[in-house]
Amino acid sequence: LKNHQKRWAIIVAGGSGKRMGSELPKQFLLLNKKPILMHSIEAFYNFDASIEFIIVLPRTSFEIWEQLKSDFCFNIPHQTAEGGETRFHSVKQGLSLAGNDGLIAIHDAVRPLVSKPTLDCCFSEAAKTGNAVPYIPLVDSARIVEDTGSKIIDRDKLALIQTPQIFNANLLHKAYKQAYNPLYTDDASVVESIGVKINLVEGNRENIKITTPEDLYVAEAYLKKLISG
Amino acid sequence: LKNHQKRWAIIVAGGSGKRMGSELPKQFLLLNKKPILMHSIEAFYNFDASIEFIIVLPRTSFEIWEQLKSDFCFNIPHQTAEGGETRFHSVKQGLSLAGNDGLIAIHDAVRPLVSKPTLDCCFSEAAKTGNAVPYIPLVDSARIVEDTGSKIIDRDKLALIQTPQIFNANLLHKAYKQAYNPLYTDDASVVESIGVKINLVEGNRENIKITTPEDLYVAEAYLKKLISG
Repeated sequence: LKNHQKRWAIIVAGGSGKRMGSELPKQFLLLNKKPILMHSIEAFYNFDASIEFIIVLPRTSFEIWEQLKSDFCFNIPHQTAEGGETRFHSVKQGLSLAGNDGLIAIHDAVRPLVSKPTLDCCFSEAAKTGNAVPYIPLVDSARIVEDTGSKIIDRDKLALIQTPQIFNANLLHKAYKQAYNPLYTDDASVVESIGVKINLVEGNRENIKITTPEDLYVAEAYLKKLISG
Repeated sequence: LKNHQKRWAIIVAGGSGKRMGSELPKQFLLLNKKPILMHSIEAFYNFDASIEFIIVLPRTSFEIWEQLKSDFCFNIPHQTAEGGETRFHSVKQGLSLAGNDGLIAIHDAVRPLVSKPTLDCCFSEAAKTGNAVPYIPLVDSARIVEDTGSKIIDRDKLALIQTPQIFNANLLHKAYKQAYNPLYTDDASVVESIGVKINLVEGNRENIKITTPEDLYVAEAYLKKLISG
């Protein structure tokens, strides 16, 4: 019965590709011979084919995306929204196409390796409590850098945050009615600012954000491993 | 002239291999057909062949290490020390073989991909100021987890800490004369506790700590990329 609750996925591709040293925006770079964005959409689709997709892209990428869909015979149904100036504005544009019922997942287009257990944990927790955000623990030590120097921080207390960040649809619409604040670094921070407690659930380490050429190598290695067993 | 200052490298291999799901301790697993520990030693040796090496290993690994050195014709000169109960105790054992002059670098045996620029930055900064610790910035968002929930942390202020952590020899010996404290998660925290300001320098993202089978895949991908250019 839980599956009867409506599910949306807003996949946000804001990147212009500058950090990759590439002309092609990073969400279109090929991972195992297929654009990263298609992997990301398929991760959700293979988990639950009833999800309604909204893909947020810069206006300048619309034409390439149409071409890629044709070239790769990509036919998972989706709407497309035009990205804004910041991630906040892009998500807001995507939200304008989503309904007020059910759950809305917001996911980085450049995280193609989100796993089914992560998706399952996030959707289940959000269905129960209204929101869920995946995290992984830190392996290295960490320090907080301040003007006067740095100080060590207890790594057991530090959670590295990933996406999808999933929210009750009503709650998310309400949070995004606020004015933009540069302190909003992810959707959880937007929702938190209206007084909601964020619920962390376990993510998967392979669910990296591909932002550099090195990351693409790492993603290929993870993918090879996932495929081979 | 700077190179005339004596340089030590204590390479600490404490791991029993349990986390890798492997019988062989992780420092001996093969990366590009050679034990990880040999890569780590060679990274320093190829940077500066005059470095004096102290390898800290669990007693139960001594025999395997001798066998591997013979099998791989490994002939970089080094002393060997027996690891202790915690990383603190292992480093202390290694330090007992190091002199009081020059600089001492402490490095995780399972970080084979430390780059020459990282080594150069760390040794240069430590020669100038007495210590240097490499870090990389965070790509993801992060949260501090507390009993009552979690709160977002400014990721621009967060530094992920790597090794080598390099110190003036006198300073390091002094710091390690303190009694063990479970809050010592790395060498910087031990030295900081005697009132020394830690200096962060830029590390390299490939310099990961190999602690899971996935990490070994990632390291292989990085290595392939480094070799291919």
